[in-house]
Amino acid sequence: MTYCVGMVLDRGLVLMSDTRTNSGVDNISVFRKMFRWHNPGERVIALMTAGNLATTQAVISHLEERTKAPDNRHNSLLELPTMFQVAAEVGKLLQQTVQDTQERNGAKGSGRFSASIILAGQIKGMEPRLFLIYPEGNFIEASFDTPFFQIGETKYGRPILIRGYDRDMSFEDAVKLLTVSFDSTLKANLSVGLPLDLLVLERDNFQPLHERRIEQNDPYYEAISSSWSDALRSAFHSLPDYTFYQPKVK
Amino acid sequence: MTYCVGMVLDRGLVLMSDTRTNSGVDNISVFRKMFRWHNPGERVIALMTAGNLATTQAVISHLEERTKAPDNRHNSLLELPTMFQVAAEVGKLLQQTVQDTQERNGAKGSGRFSASIILAGQIKGMEPRLFLIYPEGNFIEASFDTPFFQIGETKYGRPILIRGYDRDMSFEDAVKLLTVSFDSTLKANLSVGLPLDLLVLERDNFQPLHERRIEQNDPYYEAISSSWSDALRSAFHSLPDYTFYQPKVK
Repeated sequence: MTYCVGMVLDRGLVLMSDTRTNSGVDNISVFRKMFRWHNPGERVIALMTAGNLATTQAVISHLEERTKAPDNRHNSLLELPTMFQVAAEVGKLLQQTVQDTQERNGAKGSGRFSASIILAGQIKGMEPRLFLIYPEGNFIEASFDTPFFQIGETKYGRPILIRGYDRDMSFEDAVKLLTVSFDSTLKANLSVGLPLDLLVLERDNFQPLHERRIEQNDPYYEAISSSWSDALRSAFHSLPDYTFYQPKVK
Repeated sequence: MTYCVGMVLDRGLVLMSDTRTNSGVDNISVFRKMFRWHNPGERVIALMTAGNLATTQAVISHLEERTKAPDNRHNSLLELPTMFQVAAEVGKLLQQTVQDTQERNGAKGSGRFSASIILAGQIKGMEPRLFLIYPEGNFIEASFDTPFFQIGETKYGRPILIRGYDRDMSFEDAVKLLTVSFDSTLKANLSVGLPLDLLVLERDNFQPLHERRIEQNDPYYEAISSSWSDALRSAFHSLPDYTFYQPKVK
């Protein structure tokens, strides 16, 4: 499984992904699920992937044209004129890759090679944009009402995102929020694991503002993980107490 | 969907369930998913159900023998000598009901009529016990290491349970914890909805200590729901701040 979150803030875009892949529970590996490209001063584009690893790696290779001889390569992500066209291109590649593998495998292949992608980025002269791309190749864009997307094992970490998110929060607070959301997920589900990848894309700064791998034993991650338990308990105890003898409703 | 939680405390057992059933998103109803029986001074038994409603209602009817004429009915739950045998009986009925319906429907029926059950109770002279019964009729019992079970839409509400649970907490704190867990789930998933049913079974008190339906506009539920947002935000802000310029790990 996987857990990735991309969020839009007034200040820009913040992305976090885990790196655990598993085939069953006894075949666990670390693979990068976050990829980014930039043309300094002109565009920055990032992808996060969830689902079948062979599918997502094939999509990334095609986007970078690593399927061609080195002399003939050119990265289509760095050439398309708008983020919408980038999303359409990624969606088309994803859909084709999923469909090709499924068709080769007949009925047995149904659903097994599926994947989804979060796409984030900004091209000069346009707004920062965030998309969620489905295995069918179609996609939706984040909006004021739905300012973040999750893929993979999304449920454990969702309540805190719903309650903690603020469009005008600082990048530092957004990283803190994502760290809590990931920690809640890691505590509940073995298929999501450290290290985590973090990427912060500031509006109109066409290169990553901050980029980091959060490893095992990362002091900040450990501080959040342990103080969140305490903070949650204090929060819990600050709530009004239940009593068995309540005034009847209505 | 559904959300039900049963937990074992030193003091006894606490159960909470929602009441929303849905067939698609446009056919939503309220059905009780929590059932309890007691023989004062001798035993108290409660069930919570998740899954196919026709299956779970059939199981409950068979347990109460509502399938027989009124004169011939006797409730098997009130006659079996141990909670283990009660769990086995409920499991057998559940497995048979699921299997019968699936067989009648052939390949199309696979999985669609499935259900699972949380069983809680105490019989005089024995400990309070909590079981999770699978559609296959087998079951597991809660233990010191795994002192609560969830069925249905379990993920959203799990992180707070993991962090908030304490074996020696008061019944009032347990209800508060469950209320927060349900509120997190309701906020994230339309298929879980108010009203909620609450049941508190005190150790060696062979009748319900507290039993209540938490309706729409319940003042306690509303107080928890709104103050939890604030408490969570304060907890969040009490955490150490992230900074882009951290000392390197190792």
